[in-house]
Amino acid sequence: MGNQIYVVGIGPGNESMMTAEALQVLEQSEVIVGYTVYLELLGERFTDKECLSTPMRQEEKRCRICFEKAREGKRVALICSGDAGIYGLASLMLELGKEYPDCEVAVVPGITAASSGAAVLGAPLNHDFCVISLSDLLTPWERIEKRLVAAAEGDFAMAIYNPASRKRADYLERACNILMEHGVEPERACGYVENIGREGTCAATCTIQELVHAKVNMFTTVFIGNSQSEIIGGKLVTKRGYRI
Amino acid sequence: MGNQIYVVGIGPGNESMMTAEALQVLEQSEVIVGYTVYLELLGERFTDKECLSTPMRQEEKRCRICFEKAREGKRVALICSGDAGIYGLASLMLELGKEYPDCEVAVVPGITAASSGAAVLGAPLNHDFCVISLSDLLTPWERIEKRLVAAAEGDFAMAIYNPASRKRADYLERACNILMEHGVEPERACGYVENIGREGTCAATCTIQELVHAKVNMFTTVFIGNSQSEIIGGKLVTKRGYRI
Repeated sequence: MGNQIYVVGIGPGNESMMTAEALQVLEQSEVIVGYTVYLELLGERFTDKECLSTPMRQEEKRCRICFEKAREGKRVALICSGDAGIYGLASLMLELGKEYPDCEVAVVPGITAASSGAAVLGAPLNHDFCVISLSDLLTPWERIEKRLVAAAEGDFAMAIYNPASRKRADYLERACNILMEHGVEPERACGYVENIGREGTCAATCTIQELVHAKVNMFTTVFIGNSQSEIIGGKLVTKRGYRI
Repeated sequence: MGNQIYVVGIGPGNESMMTAEALQVLEQSEVIVGYTVYLELLGERFTDKECLSTPMRQEEKRCRICFEKAREGKRVALICSGDAGIYGLASLMLELGKEYPDCEVAVVPGITAASSGAAVLGAPLNHDFCVISLSDLLTPWERIEKRLVAAAEGDFAMAIYNPASRKRADYLERACNILMEHGVEPERACGYVENIGREGTCAATCTIQELVHAKVNMFTTVFIGNSQSEIIGGKLVTKRGYRI
């Protein structure tokens, strides 16, 4: 067995939402690698470790640092927000691992925003669901559009990640319009949560028609109900079953 | 505010995969309600609590016990395996809550099998994905079939819950055939994990053609890659992005 590297999902940011397993892996690491914002989320707890970061979009470099440190014999953890294997760096690490046959990559799961955001809103994903990112940085928009159409046609509940950024201000509006053109009625029950598990958490429920004009940013996760979803007592609820 | 009830996702079963928040809620509860198997998974730790269970399919009764105990002034936690809001009892509790306006229901998220199983296999859900249950106990099969078709047409990675039971021995085979009839090539990279986070965890990767004959049961979670997924060094990997 080679030098072990752990790719660790730290959940939404609040330490109480990390698993004991993730916390233990970080405690036993000598080097913690991550995007600066995520290292800051960990707070004071791990300042005795060697903490290394690279800016956004330098993910490959961040991964290679892990392999190089592991080859020096260090115990290395690479942190990702949410779940390491859901839009995180687990897959890039496993791909690059081919070049570092003396290293082993293990994935430690965490609470992804689909789970943590859903809990804040109620139970929007309590039946079959899709998770779709609107970021077209690594995915052509046509493919995202195709997925939205399929999600609408399959009557899935949905969690939408990366609904907007400064450069993509109108992407959520575009997505809502595509869904409505493919069978999602304007009154469909929806909701969104900002800063899940961090300071300033705020959540709202609305219809998809209202969602078009919602103020969202890169810290927002959006939820779209299926045709059976309802807002009950201010909570967004997708039922477990269908009354046949 | 009224009597607070927590619906708690305990993750796959191993205490190290619960969040600190979930553990704290259980420690502060006086009554823990859950399906017998999940209560047993918690082990010795909470035997000082009043532990109440109902058999399978008596979920509504289980929920009502929570409301009744909360009305007695007890601190109540209802436990669900995985995430409380993903095929768990969060939505039923929020629906029934209309009848108990003096009670408040809060959801505490947990690691669902899509996350924990993916980590065992590698990174099969590292791009847009669907979660679909093959159980037709509460959902007509036609709707499940429609979702499978949509998932194939949208080129989603997939996590399949409840792939089989004694009465539904051939459901995974049926699902694989539907996917292959709708564009999933027979060589599509897949995998499955049994007893995630419990004794006797076992995992395998295969093609969807091989998956048709895989031995699965109600403790298995199945993963189907998207068109870009690969098996790399024995791990099932869905890439973060598409090389455009």
